[in-house]
Amino acid sequence: MTPTRNARVLFAEIPDANAYPEPGKTTVYDTTQTIDLENVPLNGGFLVKTLLLSVDPYMRQWMGPGGYPIGQPLFGFGLGIVIRSESPEVKQGDHVEGSLLYQEYNIKQSLKGPEPVADLTVIENKENLPWSVYLGLAGMPGKTAYYGWREFSSAKKGEVVFVSTGAGPVGSLVIQLAKRDGLKVVACAGSEEKVRFMKALGTDVAFNYKTTKPSEVLAKEGPVDIYWDHVGGDFLDAALVNSSRKARIISCGAISGYNSGNSTPVKALGQIIYKSITIYGLYVFENDHKYKDEFYKTIPHLISEGQIRYTEELESGLEKVGEAILKQQKGQNNGKIVIHVADE
Amino acid sequence: MTPTRNARVLFAEIPDANAYPEPGKTTVYDTTQTIDLENVPLNGGFLVKTLLLSVDPYMRQWMGPGGYPIGQPLFGFGLGIVIRSESPEVKQGDHVEGSLLYQEYNIKQSLKGPEPVADLTVIENKENLPWSVYLGLAGMPGKTAYYGWREFSSAKKGEVVFVSTGAGPVGSLVIQLAKRDGLKVVACAGSEEKVRFMKALGTDVAFNYKTTKPSEVLAKEGPVDIYWDHVGGDFLDAALVNSSRKARIISCGAISGYNSGNSTPVKALGQIIYKSITIYGLYVFENDHKYKDEFYKTIPHLISEGQIRYTEELESGLEKVGEAILKQQKGQNNGKIVIHVADE
Repeated sequence: MTPTRNARVLFAEIPDANAYPEPGKTTVYDTTQTIDLENVPLNGGFLVKTLLLSVDPYMRQWMGPGGYPIGQPLFGFGLGIVIRSESPEVKQGDHVEGSLLYQEYNIKQSLKGPEPVADLTVIENKENLPWSVYLGLAGMPGKTAYYGWREFSSAKKGEVVFVSTGAGPVGSLVIQLAKRDGLKVVACAGSEEKVRFMKALGTDVAFNYKTTKPSEVLAKEGPVDIYWDHVGGDFLDAALVNSSRKARIISCGAISGYNSGNSTPVKALGQIIYKSITIYGLYVFENDHKYKDEFYKTIPHLISEGQIRYTEELESGLEKVGEAILKQQKGQNNGKIVIHVADE
Repeated sequence: MTPTRNARVLFAEIPDANAYPEPGKTTVYDTTQTIDLENVPLNGGFLVKTLLLSVDPYMRQWMGPGGYPIGQPLFGFGLGIVIRSESPEVKQGDHVEGSLLYQEYNIKQSLKGPEPVADLTVIENKENLPWSVYLGLAGMPGKTAYYGWREFSSAKKGEVVFVSTGAGPVGSLVIQLAKRDGLKVVACAGSEEKVRFMKALGTDVAFNYKTTKPSEVLAKEGPVDIYWDHVGGDFLDAALVNSSRKARIISCGAISGYNSGNSTPVKALGQIIYKSITIYGLYVFENDHKYKDEFYKTIPHLISEGQIRYTEELESGLEKVGEAILKQQKGQNNGKIVIHVADE
């Protein structure tokens, strides 16, 4: 058979720690590689055609020294279909979600990824959801929210939770889980459109942090029993100062530092002593073994019933990955960014 | 009966947030008050003669707005003897340890303090330890180390613990508890004499942070599984950068900020996410109900057997409190500072 193009998004150059990544410079779309889909040796593994790829804020953190290898494809979360298999784990036609190289085709030896990185999961999709949802609320971001909330929140009805970047896939699921548990939800995001979305999810106090200071809102609406942090820096300080005794802080991201050398200072950390606060660093796959089955039994069903809502921004074409990463780092997207790479 | 002097150490003025407290200005020794020991109404309570008072680093934190009331005596931890009692809780001659005003005599209504502040405890001292030990390793600092270690360390044999201010009463007990549990102990303090003491306690790697950088030692001796933090700022950053996955950080103090507005920045907090680190704010009395009995059964006995060691700096006279506070904030003391106020 004639070789088929296997286009890739390569990590070309480490960006300045204090700068945004540049599409075409930091990452490069490359079409030089080909693959013989029928004859490429699988050595007992399987061949996956990439259908969808996720763009997530943490990817900026892999763009520093010791992260993505230079000259190699980016990797992250994707969804694909198995087009050939020599493995007993999967069969042709199966949909798999998990760690993929950002290229059109991947050869995988096993569903199992190296610890503590994500495995691949065969997605049955009994609820017939759009496949892209398995990269959002029913995928890694959803697991992040669900596992973290279950493991660390110790949520009690009537408590106050503050959620930063509440319009993203993680934050928006946290908001909805918190409302289901009977909490008062205070949440912020960076545009009026995002504020409207958070209100539609049931957020009690939704605000635009670009026009209203978190510290002022929390002084009025707190004290905060749970802070779900995606920002770090000033936001974390505001939450610390306005926390209740025995508050729980779930640290899930620190976007304020991602494009400025990861050194956004936190100044109010001394608050945790006298208030007996605990701060949990949340790395989603640490708790995969504990909550994965429960997650897949719960969340896709709730989404299919309309009891849990999401927003998504679907972009078309593998070549769009670099621009999508930049847009997301700047907070200019509305909802979960998913790249449509190919149809089945 | 003629009135007896009831000398006090008053909190006179809030010091500048960026300055050390000044003896004679921040705090003032005052001898104007008297008390009629035989006739002062007790209203069902009891009268305590102060024998010993503790000077502890946290006291600087009470010297800001909303802390110690201006013009009123300091309060903190002390040990006294009951000289009159109308309470069924204590009898004349009992020794009590816990929250006292920094004055020669205290009238108390109950052993129970307002939550979450320390209660008074009747000390039997079956081991016949020096009473001052009940303000050190067998008192609040000892409880801080013991409760915090039991509740939060999840210590496993062979792990690495880093202890800052390892020559103080909390740090030195943490070192000894860690050695008893089979850990490798890395600890620092600010003088060669303190380094010698830490080595005598069995510390595997003891260093003077004024001549050796924590980040360099930890890069070599780590990664750190448990960091017991009394400093914050750079020390916490060094521990975060050199932590293992699933490390535990027990935040027990942040002296680096106490005399500089509590705003010493922490820059490496983003480390906690990818490493699944948890940071526990340790307020000792939060866990009093859980470990108090066990503590009094364990620690005084181990001290009396010489299995747990301590150093102490005993100063004479209530009028020395202000200077002792300053000395301690500057780290110029050697061991637990206790003020001898009176003999029985």
